[in-house]
Amino acid sequence: MKNDNSEIQSIVDARSQFPNLNRQDHRDNRIIYLDNAATTHKPQLVIDSLVNHFSNQNANIHRGIHTLAIEATSHYEESRRKVQQFINAREESEVIFTSGTTAGVNLVAQTFAQQQIRPGDEILISILEHHSNLLPWQQLAAQKGAKLKVIPITACGELDMPSLERMLTSRVKILALTHISNSLGTINPIRDIIKMARSQGTYVLIDAAQSVGSYPIDVQDLDCDFLVFSGHKMYGPTGIGVLYGKAELLQAMPPWQFGGEMIRSVQIEKTVFAAPPHKFEAGTPPIAQAIALGAAIDFIGQVGLEHIQAQNQALLAYGTELLAEIPGLQLVGKARHKSAIISFMLEDIHPHDLATILNQAGVAVRAGHHCTQPLMESLGLPGTVRASMAFYNTYEDIDQLKQGLLLAKKIFT
Amino acid sequence: MKNDNSEIQSIVDARSQFPNLNRQDHRDNRIIYLDNAATTHKPQLVIDSLVNHFSNQNANIHRGIHTLAIEATSHYEESRRKVQQFINAREESEVIFTSGTTAGVNLVAQTFAQQQIRPGDEILISILEHHSNLLPWQQLAAQKGAKLKVIPITACGELDMPSLERMLTSRVKILALTHISNSLGTINPIRDIIKMARSQGTYVLIDAAQSVGSYPIDVQDLDCDFLVFSGHKMYGPTGIGVLYGKAELLQAMPPWQFGGEMIRSVQIEKTVFAAPPHKFEAGTPPIAQAIALGAAIDFIGQVGLEHIQAQNQALLAYGTELLAEIPGLQLVGKARHKSAIISFMLEDIHPHDLATILNQAGVAVRAGHHCTQPLMESLGLPGTVRASMAFYNTYEDIDQLKQGLLLAKKIFT
Repeated sequence: MKNDNSEIQSIVDARSQFPNLNRQDHRDNRIIYLDNAATTHKPQLVIDSLVNHFSNQNANIHRGIHTLAIEATSHYEESRRKVQQFINAREESEVIFTSGTTAGVNLVAQTFAQQQIRPGDEILISILEHHSNLLPWQQLAAQKGAKLKVIPITACGELDMPSLERMLTSRVKILALTHISNSLGTINPIRDIIKMARSQGTYVLIDAAQSVGSYPIDVQDLDCDFLVFSGHKMYGPTGIGVLYGKAELLQAMPPWQFGGEMIRSVQIEKTVFAAPPHKFEAGTPPIAQAIALGAAIDFIGQVGLEHIQAQNQALLAYGTELLAEIPGLQLVGKARHKSAIISFMLEDIHPHDLATILNQAGVAVRAGHHCTQPLMESLGLPGTVRASMAFYNTYEDIDQLKQGLLLAKKIFT
Repeated sequence: MKNDNSEIQSIVDARSQFPNLNRQDHRDNRIIYLDNAATTHKPQLVIDSLVNHFSNQNANIHRGIHTLAIEATSHYEESRRKVQQFINAREESEVIFTSGTTAGVNLVAQTFAQQQIRPGDEILISILEHHSNLLPWQQLAAQKGAKLKVIPITACGELDMPSLERMLTSRVKILALTHISNSLGTINPIRDIIKMARSQGTYVLIDAAQSVGSYPIDVQDLDCDFLVFSGHKMYGPTGIGVLYGKAELLQAMPPWQFGGEMIRSVQIEKTVFAAPPHKFEAGTPPIAQAIALGAAIDFIGQVGLEHIQAQNQALLAYGTELLAEIPGLQLVGKARHKSAIISFMLEDIHPHDLATILNQAGVAVRAGHHCTQPLMESLGLPGTVRASMAFYNTYEDIDQLKQGLLLAKKIFT
């Protein structure tokens, strides 16, 4: 089940790049960080990128013709090309820098979908969606008199495909679907689903917050219309995200925010907007953060996405087996294809109490609804405890999770 | 004209905190950075804050009950309190973290103003506005059938107060006004103007991007309804800004972006939103950047805002006198109250050519319309060259600017 040594060796090297993995708690124990679905730690390369920008290159971009501004602009646009290559977008201009996944979904909902959706139209999501890929559609549907429809899941936490096929009719104007469930770890078969949606003339937005950086993403192969993700969940800084959109759609869409840098010409009476990507990047963008996202992509390239993916799967398999050994532990989400997210309940211990005990044992997990309240309600649960692994976690980390759970069991029963 | 030695001494100490001031160009000359109105350099305290967060505290906030999440949340909210105290807001919840000034204006235009503005209503701005405080209102007015009115300026670049008084009637629902012109440096008498607006029942948004961090701001004394600014123009990182709003207005406003953390409860049918500030902070916020903005405020406190302000004024006076000695140099903007921004033309040399020569001489200035195209059009100019000083600039920096200009004059005439 564990990977072979050569692979582990490169992972060990990569692991040494994350200073926060050495962080200790109040008892001088190293904190076991199993909250990677909330945010990942940052490798030194990313931290150095921020320091270098602010210490040696700091300037505002695009508008300047002095050395620092030229350098900063060049690094910012180079980062856009790195993202383009990383997700295999056809053109640089299909990569819009945003402040994060949430901003990306809201941008599409408040511009593209605002124009597309008519009363009686249907918007299709799944019950797995994070609030960030649910609320924008719920609010838009209410505003437009459209119908929000929700694909259910099976008992093991997979999308109910017969329901999906039945619901995905030509009345559905937009399908907004997560690639990977942040609560259950389910990996949805998005490539097949996008193909089905195409045949109905349905536009598709993919929430890839949990997948980019851990699993290969090829937007041309997927053929999605939009795809959104965050820098901070793929070893990059907070404050930066990406909206990928097909060029022809971005060109036709109205802008979302208005301000500097997104214009061709401004008069008091009339403004002519710039072409994408600039049309969607009003104001001073998160310059340093975009550049550091490029560094995160460099880092992923150095480790190898295939190694990251393999390690994630090895940790998932090991953790799933180990936790199943604990009597009274109920795994929540048993999809056949899962990312390294393990959600569970332990007997009738409240998730918050369980997470508190684990924290005292030096293990950082998340407890609660994970911003998926409708999913929790559909499961009849107040929430779960969620252990989410990144490739830099170790089997020993999971051993400690198990020890913490056994301790909690002793305390509470 | 120069400040006394004790004051300079503390400025010299503060100056040593900015690593980017040591940056050299391709000829190994130190770059003279006079582009501070675009973005300021960052002191080591701010850079260290980012490094510390990502190296020792990294976690997502609010939702976590493990040590790192608790610490990160505590630092994030502590930063909100620092902002509150810095601008003297009545309550913490009146401080909304945004991605920058542009996002702040768009938020108010697309929520509060979206609800307030009716066909035939008037929105009042000035010809001094940056595109970020012009386009959101222009677009809203067009959408709503409202009128966008524009306060003109006098020959010296001050607001034409008789016009303003005539235009500021009870038909004006919203006045959106810059505190300091980013193009001309004009400091507007916003306190008096806000008082006039109040008497007409007009809501006021102040664009304080050029003033917070350089001049004292007291939102209770000003009595503005909204005030927006950016971190990166006050020694903080990119990717973070602040929207101040009066509590009662924020409570009544609908949210702008929808996602995680801005909810009380979510069902498929219905969502109940959280109270401010969280209602307006959907998704993972720019956590590290908000914390680093707090560090920037600490730094400003260490230097002393009164010293910063005095040094800015001393640099402005010195620079204005020095540049006036250059034959053929035309200052653009001669308001009685100005910030440390000097816009100018030199004979008929195109601003971009002038900036290019200055860059070769190691002096970083900005050239163009400075995101104020309607202002430039009203002045009959293609743009200006803008030298904008921060307190860490020196008299010698301005001497070098003058030398560069004399060189350009020799080349072009």
